[in-house]
Amino acid sequence: MVRRTGRRPGNPDTREAILSAARGAFAEKGFDGASIRAIAAGAGVDPALVHHYFGTKDKLFLATMNAPVDPTDVIAEAGAGERHEIGERFVRAFLGMWDGPRGSAAVALMRSVVGTEWTAKMFREFIITQILRRAVAGLDLDPAEADLRVTLAASHLAGLALARYVVKVEPLASVPSETLVAAIGPAVQRYLTEELPGVFAA
Amino acid sequence: MVRRTGRRPGNPDTREAILSAARGAFAEKGFDGASIRAIAAGAGVDPALVHHYFGTKDKLFLATMNAPVDPTDVIAEAGAGERHEIGERFVRAFLGMWDGPRGSAAVALMRSVVGTEWTAKMFREFIITQILRRAVAGLDLDPAEADLRVTLAASHLAGLALARYVVKVEPLASVPSETLVAAIGPAVQRYLTEELPGVFAA
Repeated sequence: MVRRTGRRPGNPDTREAILSAARGAFAEKGFDGASIRAIAAGAGVDPALVHHYFGTKDKLFLATMNAPVDPTDVIAEAGAGERHEIGERFVRAFLGMWDGPRGSAAVALMRSVVGTEWTAKMFREFIITQILRRAVAGLDLDPAEADLRVTLAASHLAGLALARYVVKVEPLASVPSETLVAAIGPAVQRYLTEELPGVFAA
Repeated sequence: MVRRTGRRPGNPDTREAILSAARGAFAEKGFDGASIRAIAAGAGVDPALVHHYFGTKDKLFLATMNAPVDPTDVIAEAGAGERHEIGERFVRAFLGMWDGPRGSAAVALMRSVVGTEWTAKMFREFIITQILRRAVAGLDLDPAEADLRVTLAASHLAGLALARYVVKVEPLASVPSETLVAAIGPAVQRYLTEELPGVFAA
């Protein structure tokens, strides 16, 4: 529900009004179609105030989803070292997020994505605009293959999080993170950078 | 809510009363601790009637979860051919379940497992009693390694289902099944039967 009464900087409701307007705009028009200007108008505030509270449209979108981390950071971290270690670094960074102070927000987001079509739709936008577009550049992937490679890797990590942190299936829920890095890192590496016969033409 | 009024075979409420009593018993005492006799008493029926409606305790448990398939069948199918093709066969059988007439039941079960602690608890029992115990024998796995191997493989498949059938992330949601068999089969194979350095002592 967007409230349109006049607001001033510092009004504690302003941030929430912007978020509410942004949720509506992103859901209705998608990430690319929603403009800061329209979101500001929906919240009854000046566009400069949206930038003041949230910075970029990317950051505003992450805030509407209560995203536990900025995927840009995770991609930059995983893409920064040796190429043959991308898989292990991704698994380690991903587990670090779930084991960190924002882990409960991640659990809440996963429950919401699975439980409600609205969040699922927002999450698809999130995957496309915040993860896939960046992965091509950040991980130096072939643009023709990047989307399937990244979603294969991401779906594996999502299943790991589902089993370990949401459903808590043993022994997966209790083994040390580095055991999972050793187990799953090579699979993620293969999805991102190795030959996949039968998936892509050689 | 268990209703304890007298029932006769053929009463359309009898089946539901047994299921309701079974859900309570399995949640409270676990699969091993819940007896057909106690479930029958809870439903106010003769134990023979429980067997008449549901067969074994295994089948009754699957019915309480509205399980889309009997995992015994999937494990038997995947374990039946060449050992080096277990991964591909598992992925194929798993996708076949989601693409089949029971696919919507599978989506409903996944939403429920993620959304409610009660179902999550039941699902953990399901993994332990219906999948892990059978996998050791059906797939000829080392009992000391089987639980982690099978939960790694299962978590990967769960993530695939989450992305493809529940959240519907593209391009994963639209690629042909056999593309996914080629992509994911080798990872599942590795979890089940190959060396996993850093995970198990050599």
